[in-house]
Amino acid sequence: MTDFFRDIPKITYQGPDAATDFAFRHYDPEAVVMGKRLEDHLRFAVAYWHSFAWEGGDPFGGRTFDRPWWGDDMAAAKAKADAAFELFAILGQPYFCFHDADVRPEGASFAESRRNLEEIVDHFGTKMEETGTRLLWGTANLFSHRRFMSGSATNPDPDVFAYAAATVKSCLDATQKLGGENYVLWGGREGYETLLNTDLARERQQAGRFLSMVVDYAHKIGFKGTILVEPKPQEPTKHQYDYDVATVYGFLKEFGLEKEVKMNIEQGHAILAGHSFEHELALARDLGILGSIDMNRNDYQSGWDTDQFPNNVPEVALAYYEILKGGGFTTGGTNFDAKLRRQSLDAEDLVLAHVGAMDVCARGLRAAAAMLEDGGLEDARTARYADWDKPENAGLLSADLAQIAQRVEDEDIRPEPRSGRQERLENWLNRFV
Amino acid sequence: MTDFFRDIPKITYQGPDAATDFAFRHYDPEAVVMGKRLEDHLRFAVAYWHSFAWEGGDPFGGRTFDRPWWGDDMAAAKAKADAAFELFAILGQPYFCFHDADVRPEGASFAESRRNLEEIVDHFGTKMEETGTRLLWGTANLFSHRRFMSGSATNPDPDVFAYAAATVKSCLDATQKLGGENYVLWGGREGYETLLNTDLARERQQAGRFLSMVVDYAHKIGFKGTILVEPKPQEPTKHQYDYDVATVYGFLKEFGLEKEVKMNIEQGHAILAGHSFEHELALARDLGILGSIDMNRNDYQSGWDTDQFPNNVPEVALAYYEILKGGGFTTGGTNFDAKLRRQSLDAEDLVLAHVGAMDVCARGLRAAAAMLEDGGLEDARTARYADWDKPENAGLLSADLAQIAQRVEDEDIRPEPRSGRQERLENWLNRFV
Amino acid sequence: MTDFFRDIPKITYQGPDAATDFAFRHYDPEAVVMGKRLEDHLRFAVAYWHSFAWEGGDPFGGRTFDRPWWGDDMAAAKAKADAAFELFAILGQPYFCFHDADVRPEGASFAESRRNLEEIVDHFGTKMEETGTRLLWGTANLFSHRRFMSGSATNPDPDVFAYAAATVKSCLDATQKLGGENYVLWGGREGYETLLNTDLARERQQAGRFLSMVVDYAHKIGFKGTILVEPKPQEPTKHQYDYDVATVYGFLKEFGLEKEVKMNIEQGHAILAGHSFEHELALARDLGILGSIDMNRNDYQSGWDTDQFPNNVPEVALAYYEILKGGGFTTGGTNFDAKLRRQSLDAEDLVLAHVGAMDVCARGLRAAAAMLEDGGLEDARTARYADWDKPENAGLLSADLAQIAQRVEDEDIRPEPRSGRQERLENWLNRFV
Amino acid sequence: MTDFFRDIPKITYQGPDAATDFAFRHYDPEAVVMGKRLEDHLRFAVAYWHSFAWEGGDPFGGRTFDRPWWGDDMAAAKAKADAAFELFAILGQPYFCFHDADVRPEGASFAESRRNLEEIVDHFGTKMEETGTRLLWGTANLFSHRRFMSGSATNPDPDVFAYAAATVKSCLDATQKLGGENYVLWGGREGYETLLNTDLARERQQAGRFLSMVVDYAHKIGFKGTILVEPKPQEPTKHQYDYDVATVYGFLKEFGLEKEVKMNIEQGHAILAGHSFEHELALARDLGILGSIDMNRNDYQSGWDTDQFPNNVPEVALAYYEILKGGGFTTGGTNFDAKLRRQSLDAEDLVLAHVGAMDVCARGLRAAAAMLEDGGLEDARTARYADWDKPENAGLLSADLAQIAQRVEDEDIRPEPRSGRQERLENWLNRFV
Repeated sequence: MTDFFRDIPKITYQGPDAATDFAFRHYDPEAVVMGKRLEDHLRFAVAYWHSFAWEGGDPFGGRTFDRPWWGDDMAAAKAKADAAFELFAILGQPYFCFHDADVRPEGASFAESRRNLEEIVDHFGTKMEETGTRLLWGTANLFSHRRFMSGSATNPDPDVFAYAAATVKSCLDATQKLGGENYVLWGGREGYETLLNTDLARERQQAGRFLSMVVDYAHKIGFKGTILVEPKPQEPTKHQYDYDVATVYGFLKEFGLEKEVKMNIEQGHAILAGHSFEHELALARDLGILGSIDMNRNDYQSGWDTDQFPNNVPEVALAYYEILKGGGFTTGGTNFDAKLRRQSLDAEDLVLAHVGAMDVCARGLRAAAAMLEDGGLEDARTARYADWDKPENAGLLSADLAQIAQRVEDEDIRPEPRSGRQERLENWLNRFV
Repeated sequence: MTDFFRDIPKITYQGPDAATDFAFRHYDPEAVVMGKRLEDHLRFAVAYWHSFAWEGGDPFGGRTFDRPWWGDDMAAAKAKADAAFELFAILGQPYFCFHDADVRPEGASFAESRRNLEEIVDHFGTKMEETGTRLLWGTANLFSHRRFMSGSATNPDPDVFAYAAATVKSCLDATQKLGGENYVLWGGREGYETLLNTDLARERQQAGRFLSMVVDYAHKIGFKGTILVEPKPQEPTKHQYDYDVATVYGFLKEFGLEKEVKMNIEQGHAILAGHSFEHELALARDLGILGSIDMNRNDYQSGWDTDQFPNNVPEVALAYYEILKGGGFTTGGTNFDAKLRRQSLDAEDLVLAHVGAMDVCARGLRAAAAMLEDGGLEDARTARYADWDKPENAGLLSADLAQIAQRVEDEDIRPEPRSGRQERLENWLNRFV
Repeated sequence: MTDFFRDIPKITYQGPDAATDFAFRHYDPEAVVMGKRLEDHLRFAVAYWHSFAWEGGDPFGGRTFDRPWWGDDMAAAKAKADAAFELFAILGQPYFCFHDADVRPEGASFAESRRNLEEIVDHFGTKMEETGTRLLWGTANLFSHRRFMSGSATNPDPDVFAYAAATVKSCLDATQKLGGENYVLWGGREGYETLLNTDLARERQQAGRFLSMVVDYAHKIGFKGTILVEPKPQEPTKHQYDYDVATVYGFLKEFGLEKEVKMNIEQGHAILAGHSFEHELALARDLGILGSIDMNRNDYQSGWDTDQFPNNVPEVALAYYEILKGGGFTTGGTNFDAKLRRQSLDAEDLVLAHVGAMDVCARGLRAAAAMLEDGGLEDARTARYADWDKPENAGLLSADLAQIAQRVEDEDIRPEPRSGRQERLENWLNRFV
Repeated sequence: MTDFFRDIPKITYQGPDAATDFAFRHYDPEAVVMGKRLEDHLRFAVAYWHSFAWEGGDPFGGRTFDRPWWGDDMAAAKAKADAAFELFAILGQPYFCFHDADVRPEGASFAESRRNLEEIVDHFGTKMEETGTRLLWGTANLFSHRRFMSGSATNPDPDVFAYAAATVKSCLDATQKLGGENYVLWGGREGYETLLNTDLARERQQAGRFLSMVVDYAHKIGFKGTILVEPKPQEPTKHQYDYDVATVYGFLKEFGLEKEVKMNIEQGHAILAGHSFEHELALARDLGILGSIDMNRNDYQSGWDTDQFPNNVPEVALAYYEILKGGGFTTGGTNFDAKLRRQSLDAEDLVLAHVGAMDVCARGLRAAAAMLEDGGLEDARTARYADWDKPENAGLLSADLAQIAQRVEDEDIRPEPRSGRQERLENWLNRFV
C-alpha cells in the first residue's frame, strides 16, 4: 500500500443520508435496474492519464500537483501503477483506460518504448489478476510528443506515419493481452493549424488507410473488442478531421468501415462541436455506431475542453436515456475522461471527484431507466408520427414528385400544423430527474 | 421604368479613382484573368428574397423598409419583378436566384400558388429575354409558412411531406423553364427544436427519400443543371440536419447520392458551424461536391446568421483561391445571399451594397488568380509532402501494421519534426491581397 | 370567460404524485421556507409580451400561433387582456409585467398611443382589483417600431430621443397608477450595428442623461418602486451598451446613479455575455445592485436569445442561492420572460409551460434554502479565507508595496498552495438538488 | 553573436517588390505619415515571453522548439538575453516587453528571485545602452507558478497577496531602472474556477487595494510611465475579473483610479469577450483610458487565446484608425504578444513572423491615416448627429421627461427614420485598405 491514499477508506454504498463524504449515496453496484446490476449498466472506468499522469498544468501555468510517483523511469511508472490500482480498489471501479505514454517512460528508440510498455503491461496484468479490475480500452498517445506535432496518420512525413502505425500496433497488442474490451483512436493532431500548408485530400487518404490498417490488424490478432473513434472538433488543432459523429460517419462510409468502427463520444467534445451530448449519442445510435462514452462535462462558458467531472443529473439522465434506448452498453462503458481542477491538489479530491461523478451517473441512469419504463416519451413520439403508418401514406416515400404533386392538387391537401408539445415533454421529464 | 431607382445610373467600371460612389472600382466584367472574363469567373447573382422580399424585420422589430411593391397580390408581385430587373440592369448582374415565395403571392390552395408561380415565371421569362439576365438557381421556400414549422421533408405529418414534394416539383419545373443552371435545397426546418419529440432515424430516411425523388425528377424532366444542397448548422432550428459539408457528405453517401448532388456553400453558415469558409470550400472540392457559393459574410461577434455583404478582401481571396484551384465554377456562381442592414433604408443603399460587394469579389478573385499563377503556395505544399513520393515509401499505405512496426524497429526510425512555416506562408499571401 | 382556456382547470398544488399534468407538483404557494411563504419568495410574474403578443415568428418564418385576440384595435387589446387575466387566474400568478406596445394598439400620433395606453391601463386596473393580480413591473417598448431602429435614448435624431422620453413618461405613469413595484429599462436598440457610423462618446452621454431623467421623474411622481436596467450584450444590435452587470455598473458610477438603479438580470442574457447566471447575480448582489430576475434559459448550443422556460433544477437552485444569500427579493421577483417554442401552438402548451417552470423554480428555491440552512458552502468559503482574519495580516491591505516586500524577505515567505476543493463542493451541492 | 540567427540578415525596408522574404515591403521606419515617422507612430515591441521563453507546448503536447538557451540557470538566462537582443537588432525593433519570470531563473526564495532579476536587469541595461533598444513595458508574472494558482492579489491566502505585492515592487523597480515607458498588470489568475469557493466581494476589495498600492508605489519612486491593466475575459480562469474595457472602467471608478490607470488592449482578448478590437479601442479612448495595444489576433474559430501574429490588413487598419483618431500613442505602443505556431520551429520563422506582422501594421496604419486625412467617415458621422446641434434641441438633454412629453404632443413629433448607410461606409473604407 502506498502512502498517497492513506486514511481514505474503501468507498461503499451507504445511501442518500450517509454520514460521510467518503460514501456512495446513489451508486449501489448491486442494485438492479431494468434487469441488470447498476455496475453492469454503467461499466465505470478511471482514465489513467488525467488521474495519474496529468500534472495540473494549463497554458498559463505548470505543475500544481505533488505526486510521489512523478518521475520518468520504470520505477516511477510502477509506483504510479500501484497508486492507480489502489484508487481502482478504493472506488470499486470495474475498469480503467490508458494510453501508452501514461504508463511507461518514453524510450530512446521505438523499440525501447515498446519494451517499456510491455514491461508495464505485465505489471498491469498481475495487478488486474489480483484485483479483478479490467481494461475498458487501451489507446495510443499520438499527440503529445513533438514528433506528432503535425499529425500522426496524417503527417506530411511518412516516417511519422510509420512510427504512429508501429505505436498503434504495440498498443493494440497490449490491449489484446490485457483483455481490453475496446480500442480507441483519438486523432488529437489529425487536423491542421492552417489550410495554407495542408493537403486535405492527401491527409484524408492517409487517415482512411491508417484506420483500415488498424481494423485489419485487430482482425488478424483475433481482437474481439470494438474499435472506437473519438470525435472532437478542434483543440489542440484549429480543425480536427474527426469533427463530430456525422463527420466521422461520412469518413467511415467513404472507406467502407461503418460496420467495423464505432464511436467513443464525449460530452465536452459534443459541446465544442455545437451539439448536445444527447444529440451525438442519438445520432450515433441511429447510425449503428454508438460504442462507448467519455462522461466528462465541459464548462458551457469556456471555449476549450475543460474535462470536468459530471455534476448535472438532468443532463446525465438524457445521455443515458439515449444509451438505454439503444439497448445499453455492450463492449462500451462510462469512462471519466475528466481531470481534477488544477487547484484540487489532494488525494481526497481525486477520490471524491470520482465518487461524486459515479453518484451523478447512477442517479442519471436510474432516471433514464424510469423514463423508459414509464414510456411516456416514446408514446408521445410514436403518436406524433402516427400518420405515416396510415394506409393512404404507405406509398408516399416511394412515389415520385409528379405523382405526389398530382395527389396534393387532387385532394387539395392543406396541412394544418400540430403542436410539438416541447414544454409538456420537458415537464414530463422533470418528474424523473 | 419604376420610380424606385430613379436617378441611379447604370454602374460601369471606372477604375480605382472613380469620382463617384456609383461606379465599379475593381470589377471590370471584361477584364481577362487566367484566360477568362471576370464576369465569367464570378458569375454574380442577386438574391431576390433579401433584396426584394425582405422587409427589414428582426426578432425584436418589424418592417423598416418602405418599398412601392409591398403587397400580396399579383400586381405587387409584378411591380416587384419590374424593380428587380431594373436592379439587375443597373448592376449588370448576369444572374439572379429566387424562391417561389419571394416572387408570387401565396394562394388559397396549392394549385393556386402553383398557378401564381407559373404566371410570374412567364413574366420573368419575358424580362429575361429582354434583358439577358439569367437564372443561376431556383429553390422552394419550405420554411416560412406555418405549415412547415416542424419541417418539410422531415415533417411528422406525411401531408406536409407531400405538400413540400409538390412544391419542389413546381419550383424545379419553373427553374427548368427559365433555363436555371442549378437547383438549390436549403432545409431551414429540416432539423429539430428538441430531441424529445423527434425521431432522428425516421426523419433521416424521409430526408434521404425526398432528396432522391428530387434527383429522379430532375433527370426525368431533363434538367441539365446541378442539384445543390446548402448546409447550415442551426437557426432557425436548434439543430439542422445539413450541418456542414462533412455532414452532408455522409448523408449523400448513405443514400448513394454523392455523384448526383453538390454543395452550395455560404460563408455565414460555415462560420456558424465552427469552420472557416475556405475550409468548407476546400473540403467540398476535395470530396468532389463543390457546386456554388453564397458570398455573404457573418459577423464574427454575432451568434446568428447576419447575412452581410462581403467586405474583407483577404478573406474573399482565400475563398476564391480554393474555388479556382478546383478549376473555377461550372454551373455554380457567386450569389449574394446578403441583406442590407435594416437601417439601410434607401434605394442607393441597395445598389451600393452590391457594388461594393462585387468590387470586393473582383479584388479577391484577382488576388487568388495571382497566387495560383505565382504558385508559391502549391510549391510549398508539394515540398512539404514530398517524402511520400520517395520510392522507399511507395508501399507504406498498403502495408500492414506488423510490417510497418518491423520496419520502424529495423531502421530505428526517429522522425525529426520540420517547421510548418505557417507565418511565412501568411506573409507570402499578404503580398497578393 | 373567453373560450381560449376552456376546459383548462385552475392549477393547484397536488404534490409530486399528482395524477394530471395540470397540477403543481412542487410549487405550493403556502409552503413556508426560511420563514416565508413560497409565493412571497418567488414572486412569479407572467410576461405579457411573449405569452399574449408574440405570434410565433422567427427570422425565417412568420406567425404560427392562432389566437382569438389577434388584431390591432382596442377591442382586440381588451380581448387579449381578458385572456391574460384568465391565465393569471389559472396559474395563480401574483404578478405580471408588460410593455406599452404589448397591451395597446399603436396610435397615429404619440398622443393617441398614450390615450390608448391609458384606456388599457384603466381596464387593467379593474381586472387587477377583481383578481388580486399585481404588477411586478412596467416598461416601454423602445425597440420594435421602425422609428427606434437606430436607438431610442442613443438615437442620432433628437426627435427620437424626445419620443422615447415621452414614451417612458407615459409608461412610468402607467406603472405608478397600477401600483407597479418596479420599472424596467431594456435598451434593445441602445447599441450599434457598425462602429463606422456611431459616435460612442455622444451616445453614452445621451444614455446617461436619459437614465438620469427617468430617475428624476420617478422621484417627482413619488414612485416607490425600483428602477431596473436589464443588461444584454447583443441581439438585436451587434453591440448593446448595457452589455452585462459589470458594464452597467461602470455606467451607473460614471453618471452617479449606482444608488438609484438596480439590475433586472436574465439567464439568457448572462449566457450570451459569456457568464453563468449565478455569476451575474452574485456580482450584482455584491455591488449592491441586484433587483429582479428574468428566469428564462438560453439554449447553450444557440448563439441567440432563445427565451425558453427554465427546466434544469440544479441551475435554477444556484441562481436562487445567490438571491437568498442576499436576503431574497424585495421589490423584485421571478419574471418568466420566456416564450413557447413556436411549434407549441395550443392553450395547454401556454399553461403547462408556466406550470413546469414554476415547479422547477420551487424545487430550485427549496434546494437553495436547504443549502443555506445547512451552511456547508458558506462554512467552506469562510475557512478558505480565514487567514486574512489573523492578527498578523490585519494591516496587509493598508500597507505599501515596499513594506510588504520587506516583510516577504524578512520572513522568507514561501506560500504553499492549498486545495480549492471544487469537486467536493460540487458533491455537497448535489445532495440538495 | 550567437549561432541561432546566423545567416539571417538585418531586415531593411526594400519596398513591395523586394526580392527576398527577409525584407520589409511596407514598414519603412523613416517614412513620415501625418507628420510623424512610422517608427514613432507604431512603436513596435517584441514580447520576450512568447519569442524567447515559450517552448511550443499546448494542453495536449509539450515542447516542440529547440533553443540553445533552454535551461534554468543564470548562464542560460544571459544566453537567452543575448539572442533576444540579436532579434531586436535584426528587426530594428525600438522596444521590447518582459515579465520577471521570462528573464531570470526562479530562486529558492523571494530574495534570490529578486537578486536574479536585478542581475539580469543590469545585463539588459548594458545591452540596451549598446543597441538603443528601449523597454516599452515591464510586468510581473503572477500566474505561472503554482503559488499563484488561486490568484495573486485576489488569493484566499494573504501570504500570496504579500508575495505578489513584493513581486510587483521588484518588477516596477526593474522597469523604472530600465526606463520603461509603461508598467502592465495582467491578472491571469485574478478570477475564479468556481463561484462555489469564491468570495467575490472580498476578492474585489483585495484587487482594488492591490492596484491602489501599485499606483502609490509608482508615484513614490517617481515612475513617469503609465500604469496599464490588460483586460481578458477568461482563460486560464473560468471568469477573469478584468473582463473587458467596460468592466475595468467600472472597477477603476469604484476605487477612484480612473485617472491613474489606462488599458493595454489585445485583439485576441477583445474577441474572447465578444467584442471587436476596434470596439475596445474606441471605448477606452472615449473613456479616457486608452494606453497601449497587444497586436496579436485570435483565430475566430477557436475559443481560446491563440496569440497569432496579425495578418489581416483591413482589421488592423480599423484598430489604428481608432488609435490615431485619439491622437496616437503617447507612452503606449504596438506589442506583439504573439507566439509562433508550435510547428514553426526555425529561427527564420521567428524573424519572418515579426517581419510580416510589422508590414501588416505599417499598411494598416497608413490606411488609417489616409482615412483620417480624407475625413469621409468623420464627415458622415458628424452629419448623422447634426440635428443635435440645432438650436431647438439645445435644451433637450437637460429637460425633464414631463417637459419633453409635452413637447412631443404639442409638436406632434413623428420621427422618420433615416438610413444608417452602413454599406456605403464599408465601401468607402475599402478604398483605403
